[in-house]
Amino acid sequence: MAALALGLATAGRAAADDGYRLWLRYGHPAPAGAVAVRGASPMLDAAAAELRRGLPAVAGPVLLASAADPSIAALNLPVSRLGEEGYLVRRGRVDGREVTLVTGNTDRGVLYGAFALLRHLDTGGSADAIDLSSAPKVKLRILDHWDNLDGVVERGYAGRSLWDWWTLPDFKDPRYTDYARANASLGINGTVLNNVNARAESLTAPYIAKAAALADIFRPYGIKVYLSARFSAPIELGGLKTADPRDAAVAAWWRAKADEIYRAIPDFGGFLVKANSEGQPGPRDYNASHADGANMLAAAVKPHGGIVMWRAFVYADTDPDDRAKQAYTEFKPLDGKFADNVIVQVKNGAIDFQPREPFHPLFGAMPKTPLVMEFQVTKEYLGFATHLAYLGPLFTEVLDAKTGRGSETVADVVDGTAEHHRLTGMAGVANIGDDRDWTGGTFNQANWYAFGRLAWDPDLHADAIAREWARATFGASPGVVDPVVAMMMISREAVVDYTGPLGLAHLMATGHHYGPGPWVSDLKRPEWNPVYYHRADRQGIGFDRTRTGSNAVAQYAPAVAKLYANPRTTPESELLWFHHLPWDYRLKSGETLWDGLVHRYDRGVATVAEMRATWQGLKPFVDPERWDKTATFLAIQEREARWWRDASLSYWQSVNGLPLPAGSAAPAHDLSWYKAQTPAFAPGNPK
Amino acid sequence: MAALALGLATAGRAAADDGYRLWLRYGHPAPAGAVAVRGASPMLDAAAAELRRGLPAVAGPVLLASAADPSIAALNLPVSRLGEEGYLVRRGRVDGREVTLVTGNTDRGVLYGAFALLRHLDTGGSADAIDLSSAPKVKLRILDHWDNLDGVVERGYAGRSLWDWWTLPDFKDPRYTDYARANASLGINGTVLNNVNARAESLTAPYIAKAAALADIFRPYGIKVYLSARFSAPIELGGLKTADPRDAAVAAWWRAKADEIYRAIPDFGGFLVKANSEGQPGPRDYNASHADGANMLAAAVKPHGGIVMWRAFVYADTDPDDRAKQAYTEFKPLDGKFADNVIVQVKNGAIDFQPREPFHPLFGAMPKTPLVMEFQVTKEYLGFATHLAYLGPLFTEVLDAKTGRGSETVADVVDGTAEHHRLTGMAGVANIGDDRDWTGGTFNQANWYAFGRLAWDPDLHADAIAREWARATFGASPGVVDPVVAMMMISREAVVDYTGPLGLAHLMATGHHYGPGPWVSDLKRPEWNPVYYHRADRQGIGFDRTRTGSNAVAQYAPAVAKLYANPRTTPESELLWFHHLPWDYRLKSGETLWDGLVHRYDRGVATVAEMRATWQGLKPFVDPERWDKTATFLAIQEREARWWRDASLSYWQSVNGLPLPAGSAAPAHDLSWYKAQTPAFAPGNPK
Repeated sequence: MAALALGLATAGRAAADDGYRLWLRYGHPAPAGAVAVRGASPMLDAAAAELRRGLPAVAGPVLLASAADPSIAALNLPVSRLGEEGYLVRRGRVDGREVTLVTGNTDRGVLYGAFALLRHLDTGGSADAIDLSSAPKVKLRILDHWDNLDGVVERGYAGRSLWDWWTLPDFKDPRYTDYARANASLGINGTVLNNVNARAESLTAPYIAKAAALADIFRPYGIKVYLSARFSAPIELGGLKTADPRDAAVAAWWRAKADEIYRAIPDFGGFLVKANSEGQPGPRDYNASHADGANMLAAAVKPHGGIVMWRAFVYADTDPDDRAKQAYTEFKPLDGKFADNVIVQVKNGAIDFQPREPFHPLFGAMPKTPLVMEFQVTKEYLGFATHLAYLGPLFTEVLDAKTGRGSETVADVVDGTAEHHRLTGMAGVANIGDDRDWTGGTFNQANWYAFGRLAWDPDLHADAIAREWARATFGASPGVVDPVVAMMMISREAVVDYTGPLGLAHLMATGHHYGPGPWVSDLKRPEWNPVYYHRADRQGIGFDRTRTGSNAVAQYAPAVAKLYANPRTTPESELLWFHHLPWDYRLKSGETLWDGLVHRYDRGVATVAEMRATWQGLKPFVDPERWDKTATFLAIQEREARWWRDASLSYWQSVNGLPLPAGSAAPAHDLSWYKAQTPAFAPGNPK
Repeated sequence: MAALALGLATAGRAAADDGYRLWLRYGHPAPAGAVAVRGASPMLDAAAAELRRGLPAVAGPVLLASAADPSIAALNLPVSRLGEEGYLVRRGRVDGREVTLVTGNTDRGVLYGAFALLRHLDTGGSADAIDLSSAPKVKLRILDHWDNLDGVVERGYAGRSLWDWWTLPDFKDPRYTDYARANASLGINGTVLNNVNARAESLTAPYIAKAAALADIFRPYGIKVYLSARFSAPIELGGLKTADPRDAAVAAWWRAKADEIYRAIPDFGGFLVKANSEGQPGPRDYNASHADGANMLAAAVKPHGGIVMWRAFVYADTDPDDRAKQAYTEFKPLDGKFADNVIVQVKNGAIDFQPREPFHPLFGAMPKTPLVMEFQVTKEYLGFATHLAYLGPLFTEVLDAKTGRGSETVADVVDGTAEHHRLTGMAGVANIGDDRDWTGGTFNQANWYAFGRLAWDPDLHADAIAREWARATFGASPGVVDPVVAMMMISREAVVDYTGPLGLAHLMATGHHYGPGPWVSDLKRPEWNPVYYHRADRQGIGFDRTRTGSNAVAQYAPAVAKLYANPRTTPESELLWFHHLPWDYRLKSGETLWDGLVHRYDRGVATVAEMRATWQGLKPFVDPERWDKTATFLAIQEREARWWRDASLSYWQSVNGLPLPAGSAAPAHDLSWYKAQTPAFAPGNPK
């Protein structure tokens, strides 16, 4: 009987859920005839096909139609506020028939409306009085794939690149369509196919043809293709002697290249460029400015309606100044110097996607220049695919931050509210690979989801997004949704706590960035070393970015700079980012800085244990395959949270000689043991 | 209406088949109670679970029981011939109940019997008078994974390694179990987890624990885990100054390492070693012999029942002799010098997995030494994953070859018939990766299948295996099975024809080995260059391996050597492997060698066109996802068959100055164009 039971359980297991469907987990196809379409276009077909995949019977019949259709126009609906991408979904009578109408001023609006209707119903919305309407606040909603042409994804933890360049353009994997569907369901409307550390080959004819094949698949889902451009391509591919942006032959080469691309991809989005950063070539190689470089490329794509996204992530190996200041120093003077089809892409913080960083001082400081917010959806510094860290709160914390110019928030800068820029954008460094569940773990899917939803509307709340995602992903039962949302909402702070609380950052091991390395001090460039960032010594810890230090605080608007200049008015979550403080500095709680630091490490570990316990209780509600994988990952995370805590505390104690506060357990090993831990063959690490 | 139809078609497409289930495509679970088990063990549980997954009602009830069970023993069944791995499945009355009995002398026999029953029914076998019995003829039936620890598969064309070393041993991907099921269904009983170009790290404690986790998953399916061992590991991991196999400290290090592995994996299979080959370290570095090296390692695993598979694939950078002769030269004198738990692993041919090679002269030449046949299932030289080439005929052609010692065949050497060796083995270099369909294309699955079936019984026929696979894969309709088998059976010869007919070989481009490169002559070592192999000049073409040349023919037994010594008695399919002949040499057909060569290139292209037409006709019978992918791949193959043909003929014409025979089309481009074709970022190419 035991054998029988096991056998049956194993057989049942085969039907377990592998996570491939993401949040688009429709129960069954719509009843025949439930979906009707006015007009014909690939995008309307895509919208209708999606509804037919999963529309519940309660919603039907559904009519998809442009707001310009005479029967719809006659209804005098409030469609002017929808712009070119918004949708309106409501019950109504069209040509004498009661329908759920999905409309918009464009086919794209209808497509987004179809997904909004499915989301509404799938997340428990009433089918009785449907009335949905929304338009995106940000124009460019883009995933950046750091995918190399050999299939390796830099900072990718979910398998190889989704793009099988080898069999493209011939073989069109059905998965490419599912990728487009998932993005369209969130309103993501652009994808940069290749790594910002770009190879020139991506601009050769065979790779343009491959990109064009993907563009053809993505087009009905409203997604434009972009390419990362290697600035020195005119030398490498064109045989020119220079890539100087002021050289006429260089500009001509790029114009011809743009013309070639647009012949294959008429709606090509444009170029993303990482220039003069971490070894990439750029205009500074020729004593030209970033604006010179960006504008030259912008001129090449301008006749075709293309744009250039120019990254501000720069720090120079010749500049001894605080690394956190260098992007501002370089870009702020260029405000107003960029062509009108250039948008400058700025990471959320001034260092590099740490578990927590204060918002980047360029937000609010370049009013004449549209800025793309660049978030990292892949968890380079937050435990790769195995640690559960919902990034919604990380994203919204930055978007909600006040720039210090009146009541302006970073979101106001990003969505153009502040300056009414023609271009606005949000980019997410994708966490997508060819793992069956796309993101190397169910909860990582939530970060793709949250990025997409916030790119549509930066004013959404992280917890509301989590709830939406949890319902779509695990079903509507409060028994599962409430605890899942609770886990998600505490998860990112847990990572901050066990890796670098109180504003510490960049404490990770070298290269792969997995696990602790606060002791690392032997790397060639000073700002590559964790000790550069924490500056811990016998007396204290933290980076003094006030006037007595690097004065990075002066890069913020006065109202914010004033707060950051004083440890007492600096949020404690960012304290040591801005201040070097003695170990016995008193926190608001009354405990010393050292004791508070230790308690936060303890809290981080405890929170993971709590998440793990929560997940154990959800076993009855989740299919075995997804449940097992997350349970295993949480066990890994708890072990590694301890590793981070113990290694970090061992090191801090070696520096400050202080005892742990009462009740805090001693590290399991001594410091030399932690220093010897070097995980081999970590994924996502570029060679 | 058009939009509606398209929408529905797209929705239907979502249910298309992605190939994940391989040939185990059960319709639905067995009826409750249809499967009963006597006794309990993980292996019996696995057997029962498999039957419960897919047993058709017509077969039931089924009883799984050991032949030693008193009720079964009472039946006096002919089980002695089954040995330790064979099965017997027949209808009968057990304890008064009519059942389909699945039995064997071991649980493993029962497991294989369960799969045999499913195969029988799934491939159209009658359910009325089931009487199946078989025992494997070869003891070690092993897949060799050339998987690196960073996930890259050397010569892998189906994605990354299946083994996610990063999340092992914690996360046990359900796919590992499905891998084991697929192998057990064929009787494969061993897997070498890591590349023969081995990293020492695979022998460190963390990686032993990871391998142990896989071994635990595979064990109920009768699959042992083996590791490729880097010969210099005592230096790299042990800090020794030498890896000399005669050094006592070296031997002690390996004994301790073996003890460590067996503590974690009590049934660890043993080591596979590539030594002194293509840069790998080995005993020759210390002027010790391959036998010295193998026997030292064999002594380390001997107390635990382990074995050593020592590869004979060697060619020395200091040996100017014909590369095809070097393995024989080095290993033949060692016959009788290997320990009794060493088995020497010999590739099917003397060069390297070419589309066609004569059988390796070591088969039949080392009677005192058991030899593992090493086939390459991954298509390094046969068009990667995109070209359709069913390897069954390649495998059986070699196995059926006469060694020249009486009526002995290569299969007799491999299965031990010839010398009654205790160890016998067949190894296949796996074509498996983490692509959803495992092998990067449906028809590649057939090569995994054919390898497994032939490892069980080297006397099976390639066409019968193809038929079995086609029925299991595409369903029983003769409308699909007959044409699929016909395509498969002509496919490998087509690749021979368009890449290197008449015994030509090693004509491929450098490094990645994709596409033509017969002109390549600039590589450092002479035997890396295609020109070394074809030796074409104004007068003729081919490698003279007779007495007037390298005399490689003398490595074969006299009866075979005599045939190969004369072009008139050499099979024309191997003609230029053994002979340098003038372009106007007359083939048996009466046409000149040149005309015959051209006609074969033409035939190769025409055969692919024919396969493509056949597949077009099968569209109604195959689900759209698998049909589309194969249709696309055949289009690629036809284009590239032309590329191979045109490039090769351009080159041969540049050498011989001869016109093409009437009716043969001129190449589409000139030679310089073909020489300039260099596919970028080809998969599977080691750095």
